[in-house]
Amino acid sequence: MKELTVGIDIGGTNTKFGVVDREGKVYHQANIVTTDYEEFNDFFDAMADALREGINFLPADSRIVGIGIGAANGNYYKGTIERATNLKWKGVLPLAKMFSDEFGIPCILTNDANAAAVGEMIYGHAKGMKDFVVITLGTGLGSGFVCGGLLLNGHHGIAGELGHTSVNPAGRYCNCGKRGCLETYVSATGIKRTVYKLLADHLEPSELRGISFEDLNTKMISEAANRGDIVAKEAFEYTGRILGMKLADTVVHTDPQAIFLFGGLALAGDLIFKPTLYHMEQNLMPLFRGKVKILPSAMQNQAAPILGASSLVWDYLEKTKEAIA
Amino acid sequence: MKELTVGIDIGGTNTKFGVVDREGKVYHQANIVTTDYEEFNDFFDAMADALREGINFLPADSRIVGIGIGAANGNYYKGTIERATNLKWKGVLPLAKMFSDEFGIPCILTNDANAAAVGEMIYGHAKGMKDFVVITLGTGLGSGFVCGGLLLNGHHGIAGELGHTSVNPAGRYCNCGKRGCLETYVSATGIKRTVYKLLADHLEPSELRGISFEDLNTKMISEAANRGDIVAKEAFEYTGRILGMKLADTVVHTDPQAIFLFGGLALAGDLIFKPTLYHMEQNLMPLFRGKVKILPSAMQNQAAPILGASSLVWDYLEKTKEAIA
Repeated sequence: MKELTVGIDIGGTNTKFGVVDREGKVYHQANIVTTDYEEFNDFFDAMADALREGINFLPADSRIVGIGIGAANGNYYKGTIERATNLKWKGVLPLAKMFSDEFGIPCILTNDANAAAVGEMIYGHAKGMKDFVVITLGTGLGSGFVCGGLLLNGHHGIAGELGHTSVNPAGRYCNCGKRGCLETYVSATGIKRTVYKLLADHLEPSELRGISFEDLNTKMISEAANRGDIVAKEAFEYTGRILGMKLADTVVHTDPQAIFLFGGLALAGDLIFKPTLYHMEQNLMPLFRGKVKILPSAMQNQAAPILGASSLVWDYLEKTKEAIA
Repeated sequence: MKELTVGIDIGGTNTKFGVVDREGKVYHQANIVTTDYEEFNDFFDAMADALREGINFLPADSRIVGIGIGAANGNYYKGTIERATNLKWKGVLPLAKMFSDEFGIPCILTNDANAAAVGEMIYGHAKGMKDFVVITLGTGLGSGFVCGGLLLNGHHGIAGELGHTSVNPAGRYCNCGKRGCLETYVSATGIKRTVYKLLADHLEPSELRGISFEDLNTKMISEAANRGDIVAKEAFEYTGRILGMKLADTVVHTDPQAIFLFGGLALAGDLIFKPTLYHMEQNLMPLFRGKVKILPSAMQNQAAPILGASSLVWDYLEKTKEAIA
């Protein structure tokens, strides 16, 4: 009997799910539009229906052993989504218990960046590593920590919010209500803000002067930089400098073997990796220099969030097995 | 048969050791002068002799089950002291193996702040806590993290160097070679530097104007502040502001239940705790506000470093028992 898990990635716009085996092969994949549902219960019913339908497509000799969910503000201990700013349903949503009750199998929920970290460990470049960090660079900046082979959850189940460490207490406004958080500088949105600041401050011609803030995206900035656009190149240098500086603080906290970058910004390659590594080393306590790698995530594809979420189940089953044995 | 452990605290000036039971009772305590020994091997021989002599004083029905050592730059995995700036012996010192070979019992070595964290968990206010941080405020600033009930060691065995996170890359010179490290502001030395900066910048009269930098200490500053000295009060406010700001970053990394302050500065009570808590909360991502306590360590006494070091053995024995069971 082939064991399969379901991975669900709940995003502000789309909710994707897939059925995955231990090797990371995706057997079935589907999508519902998160914003279509005014009521949380209607969203849950639609998810459950889509999942039941999906199960029809599976091989006859297979069974689903668990459901993993990655979501912004997911709480690992409680299995809830709490006060997520990217979802319209307010309050505390007990999603893990609802799925577990509905399908009679374990359901593990955590925040999307933690799911990415476990995904990297189970399917990606962190196989065999016990101490590493995954930084997800999307609309915001998320992070997941694995320490001593275990996902770092923290006392309240909300560890790893690197996006809200402080770069400048009087700096850019952040969605969280503070100012100068790391993600206001280092994320897909952050680098757009940097481009606009550079265009405001400097006189250099730039192909980006013709693009509105709404239309601008990381790919455009990285393509312009590769064509030699001074503003675009400086935007990456600035982004990498701030990320490198803050990662130096992170390294002396948890002493990781490697830090993985995932998401659109990470696809810019040397443009982001070079300044990040350089400024991390410059800002590191000498004892730590030359010890910590900054690497691209192995999970850079469409199915990554689904794989990350599904990996929570394999991780859970392994830990439970150890505890029983 | 009563089981006892040896705790050794290797300091730049003095090396203290004691024999301790599971409840934290110290049966015998002694001291050798670290700086008396030009050669590391002579220091080790003197330690071993003092230890053998100490064993004579123990109850007849007791046996020593292990040795724990806390030392600056101690490496938990390797059992070595590496490039410690406070000791005159250079290179990598394989102290754990030497003690273990000499006495035929396990020897666990880690850095002094990690030892303090395990001590707080075994004997202090962190009993029953699984996620907390201990900040030691001495000549420098050390830190030890416990995450999910386990001491956070990191990949290279050197996790928890919060003293070398960055406050200001163009700031005060640090012994580590960098500038603007947290410990140049927040430590016994840091607050002295702050007093001198304030005396230089301001015109206010202060009783501290009559004291040389060498003579000045934390106790004098705290006594002056309690008598209403404006400069001394401002020095504590400044120190707490910087500590609180940086602890907000630490909280979003590992999501602890509590942060314990240990050492001379922590004895100043409200003078340091109030501004630290206030500025931590101000700088915290709202999701974390009101969740994390800042508390005085329960280990504020002469024997604390010895208890911390001895607790490494109880922690090790417990983990080994679990692994065998």
